[in-house]
Amino acid sequence: MNKQQLIDNIRRKQSFLCVGLDTDIKKIPDHLLDSHEPVFAFNKAIIDATADLCIAYKPNLAFYESMGVKGWMAFEKTVKYIREQYPDQFIIADAKRGDIGNTSAMYARTFFEELDIDAVTVAPYMGEDSVTPFLGYDKRWVILLALTSNKGSHDFQLTEDAQGERLFEKVLRRSQEWAGDEQMMYVVGATQGRAFEDIRRIVPHHFLLVPGVGAQGGSLEEVCRYGMTKDCGLIVNSSRGIIYASKGADFAEAARQAAREVQVQMAEQLKQIF
Amino acid sequence: MNKQQLIDNIRRKQSFLCVGLDTDIKKIPDHLLDSHEPVFAFNKAIIDATADLCIAYKPNLAFYESMGVKGWMAFEKTVKYIREQYPDQFIIADAKRGDIGNTSAMYARTFFEELDIDAVTVAPYMGEDSVTPFLGYDKRWVILLALTSNKGSHDFQLTEDAQGERLFEKVLRRSQEWAGDEQMMYVVGATQGRAFEDIRRIVPHHFLLVPGVGAQGGSLEEVCRYGMTKDCGLIVNSSRGIIYASKGADFAEAARQAAREVQVQMAEQLKQIF
Repeated sequence: MNKQQLIDNIRRKQSFLCVGLDTDIKKIPDHLLDSHEPVFAFNKAIIDATADLCIAYKPNLAFYESMGVKGWMAFEKTVKYIREQYPDQFIIADAKRGDIGNTSAMYARTFFEELDIDAVTVAPYMGEDSVTPFLGYDKRWVILLALTSNKGSHDFQLTEDAQGERLFEKVLRRSQEWAGDEQMMYVVGATQGRAFEDIRRIVPHHFLLVPGVGAQGGSLEEVCRYGMTKDCGLIVNSSRGIIYASKGADFAEAARQAAREVQVQMAEQLKQIF
Repeated sequence: MNKQQLIDNIRRKQSFLCVGLDTDIKKIPDHLLDSHEPVFAFNKAIIDATADLCIAYKPNLAFYESMGVKGWMAFEKTVKYIREQYPDQFIIADAKRGDIGNTSAMYARTFFEELDIDAVTVAPYMGEDSVTPFLGYDKRWVILLALTSNKGSHDFQLTEDAQGERLFEKVLRRSQEWAGDEQMMYVVGATQGRAFEDIRRIVPHHFLLVPGVGAQGGSLEEVCRYGMTKDCGLIVNSSRGIIYASKGADFAEAARQAAREVQVQMAEQLKQIF
């Protein structure tokens, strides 16, 4: 998917919600555990209940890999289901990969060629040659970690160099030499508040993937105030707040209600630009 | 495996070689492609041919994930085979993971509980809470990226803060507050030469996992001169140089010869300390 298609979807659906499919076998409703493929059954129900309210899905690889071969099967089946049933959805593999060139190239092959995924989250620590192998694919995206939502983001990402440039700012600046806003996005946690102003000075037009609204305590209104562009420029993710809205038989309907609440807030914010 | 057991294995085998199982289906000998499980068949032959010459194996997850479900099966089967046939081998999952706490906890569960792996490589960018979930397991290790072997390592890892401390030095220093040398190791590329001196000032007793000897051009002799401790303190990895020493029917024997050459050089270096 290219940038304009993504913007069109956001305008049409009045939503920039990404539903994070952090599906944990230990947290899904008991009645699904009897089914042949409980994780896929859970994902399918969540997807069918939320697809008209969101523009992206973000399966987090850790949750699938923790189940080994069965988990990988559930992951692949989930991606295939979204592709076939909801072709307008932007699929993000939240993998946070980053390795030397030949290894990153293997990951790119997996996500973009084998699995037909739109975007992969990548960690910047190893630098340019760990990121560029993901950039050789048309209409595929790298979402680079910049300023994350967790407490530990302060440990290294805020380190200032001799010129007063913080590490996450250096990552934003340097990585623009590798690709533009048609191929690169950045992860910026919703918990970072005013930092969005500094980030928009460096990347005024890029899309930002924003986790941390809901369970982690970030504010959608604040993210929009400081981070929204004339094209929206935001994909805001919610995982636990939506997919675990209920642990009962009504989990899918509860997920839909939770997604609807966020979408309504998003439509309100989008009035500023569309 | 704990630190003393690792040191004992190095002394006994006169080797601190780690064989990197970066198995690429496109690079293994043609005659194996007919077998039911070509990747496992290749790994098994390499392992049987080198197990007495090395003290560790390091499968790189990217190469297995690029084959999807089949790749995960080959990965799990390879780990299981090493565990059962060569219990004194230190198994490193080269995954370079790093995510928010609850996600890192899922990865820790995968590698340490489901798969009985000794160590996992972890990326430091997201800070303390992305690393600590891997530290709750007895005799299991985190191998944190510090100064990597690739060209891109210069992009961010060498950035100096206002006090002149480089990012990789900050990672080494800060992470010692999270765990000691019985649970943490660091990745330092063999191509970094004199930087080993600076690194040993900060982590004089920690084991270092050193990739980049061979294909990437690092020198074993230089790594030992600047990085070796009285307990060795080094696990030097070679992947392509060993597993692809020959593409023919003699690939396993060629791998053994290549591993033997490195092991002989290592035995020579170990005379300084054992």
